[in-house]
Amino acid sequence: MSFLEKLERIPTRQDIAETHQAISEFIHYTPILTCESLNLISGAELFFKCENFQKIGAFKMRGAASTAVRLEDEELEKGFATHSSGNHAQAVARTAMLLGVPAYIVMPENAPPVKVAATKGYGAEIIFCKNVEDREPTLQEVVERTGATFIHPYNDYNVIAGQATSALELLQDVEELDVVIAPVGGGGLLSGTALSTRYWSPSTKVIGAEPEVVNDAWRSMQSGQIEVNATTNTIADGLRTNLGEKTFDIIQKHVDDILTVSEEEIIEALRLVWERMKIVIEPSSAVPLAAILQNKERFEGEKIGIILTGGNVDLSKLPF
Amino acid sequence: MSFLEKLERIPTRQDIAETHQAISEFIHYTPILTCESLNLISGAELFFKCENFQKIGAFKMRGAASTAVRLEDEELEKGFATHSSGNHAQAVARTAMLLGVPAYIVMPENAPPVKVAATKGYGAEIIFCKNVEDREPTLQEVVERTGATFIHPYNDYNVIAGQATSALELLQDVEELDVVIAPVGGGGLLSGTALSTRYWSPSTKVIGAEPEVVNDAWRSMQSGQIEVNATTNTIADGLRTNLGEKTFDIIQKHVDDILTVSEEEIIEALRLVWERMKIVIEPSSAVPLAAILQNKERFEGEKIGIILTGGNVDLSKLPF
Repeated sequence: MSFLEKLERIPTRQDIAETHQAISEFIHYTPILTCESLNLISGAELFFKCENFQKIGAFKMRGAASTAVRLEDEELEKGFATHSSGNHAQAVARTAMLLGVPAYIVMPENAPPVKVAATKGYGAEIIFCKNVEDREPTLQEVVERTGATFIHPYNDYNVIAGQATSALELLQDVEELDVVIAPVGGGGLLSGTALSTRYWSPSTKVIGAEPEVVNDAWRSMQSGQIEVNATTNTIADGLRTNLGEKTFDIIQKHVDDILTVSEEEIIEALRLVWERMKIVIEPSSAVPLAAILQNKERFEGEKIGIILTGGNVDLSKLPF
Repeated sequence: MSFLEKLERIPTRQDIAETHQAISEFIHYTPILTCESLNLISGAELFFKCENFQKIGAFKMRGAASTAVRLEDEELEKGFATHSSGNHAQAVARTAMLLGVPAYIVMPENAPPVKVAATKGYGAEIIFCKNVEDREPTLQEVVERTGATFIHPYNDYNVIAGQATSALELLQDVEELDVVIAPVGGGGLLSGTALSTRYWSPSTKVIGAEPEVVNDAWRSMQSGQIEVNATTNTIADGLRTNLGEKTFDIIQKHVDDILTVSEEEIIEALRLVWERMKIVIEPSSAVPLAAILQNKERFEGEKIGIILTGGNVDLSKLPF
């Protein structure tokens, strides 16, 4: 018996509230940290929502759990499948492990061994594909063979409803935010954040932040259609993906602006968070702070919520 | 007018409680974090007291403030002096800045520029000395010239009463701990931790942890007199100091055991905390966890409080 119905529409306020309740056993209600010295440096009042402290070290756990709680028993027991070599892979694997069902993760042959090991550590079966073109057919084959449910990394209303619960917690804990900023890759987090903000704090602005070198979201907002990236050469490895049609639709309607930052600005913001806040975040998480620091006049004196998306980094390969 | 009287005796339970109240404006009441995966790895139930989130990024703020609140106005306005190129220097400088009085910090000429800059950043005047032998005379000269109050890094009852407040908070927040473990360098933190534990949770064991290469505390406990280190060649740069007679006296009476760990074990524990807990701690802070992991049978199933002393690291010089 599933807890909730599968979503075939943009999640409503009630959908997100019910999702938050339904996934509570799978996730941490993460803390919000503040930092005097980063307030001084930015000239704004910053509230950091710490998804780096989330299970598996990233917000992706919310979206995976949000799908799992909508499956019937006979679907559940066949497990989950996805393609990812990042946090989404670990989130799907961990959710499956918690439920005692199989997880099948398609990864490219050249995926970093540390990511393969982490995902295997959660009991998942890894299926390697040769390249990006081979990814979808490999996944399709796995789904047909196993009957597992495909959990899309972002372009799925069930996943979006899960990612939306991070901003819901933020808005519950901090009142009267002027702005909420989240990074944007495929747009699952940003679209969910935008929905929660519209529902629970309609006067709060929602801004997406992304690296200049993968500024597909910014260009998509300009052109009105989904643009793709020519390169994926950013340190913010969670943000290399293009938008999906579901996430773009929500972002177009409910996100006020997209800001872009350089690789150097990301690394500087990353170092500031590590040094001043004493927490480990991944480069993607530093993009919103970098955007604030590059637009100090615009944000002066404002109360800003920042979603720190995760903290999974390879300590042997730091950019400092 | 001073808040409290200067302490010329081992701090009592009331002294420590009053100190905690008196310094509340100067310090953060730091959070306690837990981590499922470190519980699994250690086989124990661990509660991490996060002094890395303390002001200036280390517990030393408590001891400096504890001295400041005991000074008369005419003493206060002449400021503070100390010798240190580490967290104690920053703590004394920051306390002086908060009170609007001068701070004079004696540092060796070869102190790391990053530490000099951090201390200057809190408005302190740095006075360089040629070498370790020159340190005390230089400090003496500064104190005579300025009338500043010397705040000893550890061998002082006022400082010990301040450092004791970290364990006081830990014991207030977590009931029925079997063990509290703190690292030991000069012994200010460990002696304060031992006093608070005796006063507020008498059946809880108190253990000190130190690097094998600077195992002066372990040898001092064996011999019954203060032993010194032949080398200071440990990555745990906060623990290179020998005990003082005041701290040793308390440690002898109230600490149950000293455990030592290798440099490799410290680095392994450091990496585990960064990777699993997503927080930045300095190598000295990893020593207690390293000691637990090297003595798993002894600690199996126990409820253990660990004081994470600080998070000030040079990100350009990580051991990973």
